This record gives sequence, C-alpha cells and structure tokens, in this order.
Amino acid sequence: MCKAAPWQTGVYVPKDWTMASQEIENLVQALARLPGLGPRSARRAVLYLLKRPETTMKPILSAMEQVEANLVTCTICGNVDTKDPCQICSDPRRDEKSLCVVEEVSDLWALDKSRLFPGKFHVLGGKLSALDGVRPEDISIDKLLKRVEQGGIDEVVLAMNATLEGQATAHYIAERLESFPVRLSQLSHGIPVGGELDYLDEGTLAQALRSRRPVE
Amino acid sequence: MCKAAPWQTGVYVPKDWTMASQEIENLVQALARLPGLGPRSARRAVLYLLKRPETTMKPILSAMEQVEANLVTCTICGNVDTKDPCQICSDPRRDEKSLCVVEEVSDLWALDKSRLFPGKFHVLGGKLSALDGVRPEDISIDKLLKRVEQGGIDEVVLAMNATLEGQATAHYIAERLESFPVRLSQLSHGIPVGGELDYLDEGTLAQALRSRRPVE
Ligand SMILES: [Zn+2]
Ligand SMILES: [Zn+2]
Repeated sequence: MCKAAPWQTGVYVPKDWTMASQEIENLVQALARLPGLGPRSARRAVLYLLKRPETTMKPILSAMEQVEANLVTCTICGNVDTKDPCQICSDPRRDEKSLCVVEEVSDLWALDKSRLFPGKFHVLGGKLSALDGVRPEDISIDKLLKRVEQGGIDEVVLAMNATLEGQATAHYIAERLESFPVRLSQLSHGIPVGGELDYLDEGTLAQALRSRRPVE
Repeated sequence: MCKAAPWQTGVYVPKDWTMASQEIENLVQALARLPGLGPRSARRAVLYLLKRPETTMKPILSAMEQVEANLVTCTICGNVDTKDPCQICSDPRRDEKSLCVVEEVSDLWALDKSRLFPGKFHVLGGKLSALDGVRPEDISIDKLLKRVEQGGIDEVVLAMNATLEGQATAHYIAERLESFPVRLSQLSHGIPVGGELDYLDEGTLAQALRSRRPVE
C-alpha cells in the first residue's frame, strides 16, 4: 500500500495558501462587496474576467474609467450622471410640467426603471430627521422651491418613502409649496408601511403612482 | 377633475428614453454580462458604485487595472495569474510531489477553492476532441510529460471532467505516462456523469478526491 498523502487524510489546505496573487485576491474582494455578488460569485466573476480579458475585462474597465472620470451631481435635480445637466434633465421629450420629488438617487432610478413617469425629478439627498439632526436646510428643499417658483411646473409628486421621516418630509414640503399654483400629490396605496421605494417591484410602484392622492 | 397626465393613463415611457448617460448605460451593460449578475443586479451594482465612488468604484477600478496590466499565463502550469510563475507554482509550502492535471483554469480554481489538494497543478487548456479537431499537440500534454520527466513527482491525479472527451483525454494521458515511475489516479465517485468540475460543490469534490482510484 502506498503511504497516504496528507491531503488524503482529510487535512485541509491552510486558509493563507491563496490560490492567486494578491492583486487577483484584491479584485475578488472588491467585487464581492457589490450588491448581488458574494465572495463565491465574485471569484467566479473574476475567473470569467481572466479567461477572456479582451472581451470581458477591457469593456468593464474602460466603461468604469469613463464613468469614474466624468461623474457629476446634476446641478438642476441632484441626480448622479456623467454629464450636467443629467440625461433626464436634458431630455426635451420629458414632461417639464411634472416634477417627482424623491429622497435619494436610488429612488429616482427605481421609479425611472418602472418607465411609468415621463416627467422630471428632484432629488432631496436625504429626509428630515430630528434623530439624525437633518434640518430643511440640510437637504435640497430650497432648490426645489426655486424650481417651482421659476414656473412651468403644474404638478409635484411627492415620492418619499413610506417611513415616518419620509412622510414628515413630504408634509413639510407640502406646506412650503402651499402658496404655489401647483397640484400636489403623493404616492399612496401600494407602498407597504416602513417600505423603501428602492426595493419595490414595478407593479407596486405602478399602483402607487396611479392611485396617488392630493395632499390634504 | 384635473386632466390626467399621459403617465396616469398607464402609458409607458418609451424604451429609448434612457435614465442615464450612455457611459453609465455602457457600464451597466458590461457588468450585466458577468456570471451571477443580470441586467437588474447590474443596474443596482452601478448605482451602488455611483453613490460612493471613492470607497466602492475606485477600489474595483484600481484592482482591475492592476490585474489587467499584469495578467499572464504561468509558463510552468498554464494557470492565469498576475505573476509568472503563478502563486501556486511559486509557493514552497505546496507539495511538489503531487500534480493534479485539469482541463481548464476554472477547474484548477474549483479544486483549489475546496482546499483539499495542497499539491501543484497542470492546466491542459482544453480536452482531446475528434469533433472539434483538438489533437494531443493542441493542448498542454507535451509540457506535462516534460514536467514528469524532470522527476520529483510521485503522483499524478487526472482531474478531467466526467464527460466522454474528458475521460478520453485522461486515458490518453495515462497511456503516455505509463512508462514513468509515478502513481496515476483519477477522480472517481461523486462526479455526476456529464458533470463539469467547475459546477460541483465542495462536498462532492472532496468525495471524488478521497475515493480516487488507480488508473487501470
Ligand atoms: Zn438632472
Ligand atoms: Zn503555475
């Protein structure tokens, strides 16, 4: 009988014997932090990149370099894009008369992905919060008022999250907009209490948009 | 009653009204091709990158640039890494006497991820195939023979996929190695017929390794 090699006895290879160079391990770890990818999928993704770098890694790399070099916050609406004004603000086909106000860029993306709102957006960049000390002047409310003041907007849709703070923010904005000749509405049925827009499916978003009600 | 805006009637925003600049759409599309990410997760991943570019996009970008700039195929074993010889070939703690032969780099990674084999590897870069016209001289068999010829190797584990072509390749290599004083074994129980190593879980791989049998 041959003597069993160590690995035949069920001894595991120590964790610090990495299979690839530190550079590749760094890439695995960096990709593993992406939402939707864990350490296992990140490793598989990196292997995929290494196998055909010309057709897989190069396109990601150059797209990411482009984005990274040109990333800006839109000075009109607060969206993030590689140009200012952003794609949405500079698209003449969009309805300038409807303005949808959201807390975060992720909410804008969630709504826009649903393809249900062909108007423009305004990103507050947060929500009022006594707990976190976020006051009206800390988020983009004055800028919103200025946009409405300039005229041309018929309706403002308040699309805050259905959280206490989101709703308090909506009410505060509704009060500040009271004196302007705009219809005010807010997303209603379909948003689960405590739910965050960013995680809703399209159907729920559609229902919330269609059944929105005027602010009392 | 107020006149309904177009988007209240359930009219969808046309597909060509993109929400972000072409550069960002390019990045979404490039990432969507990664295994484990679809178009939806890719969009969420990009949004995550855009929100905190300094702590998310920059590390991926610099890790990927490093990897892309230094990517090489190991001249000893055929593994892909950012240095030559690769991390595995240049690690003195690994057992030089055991050599595991695999078809592809992805198989090497799958086996090494299981942490069950502390030896060295040899990547063939394919498998013999009459159908695809892949002959012995088209894959890294001569190089494998040279490594064995040089001596110092006690055992060669043939870890081909359990496909017809994989097994034909294993048999061919076994014949070529017959005259050398090495123990030859191959993965056995646990590989589903037609299965590919790269997709097996660790437990199955462990069983296949532990119950490997001598080549007749
Ligand atoms: Zn904008
Ligand atoms: Zn190597």
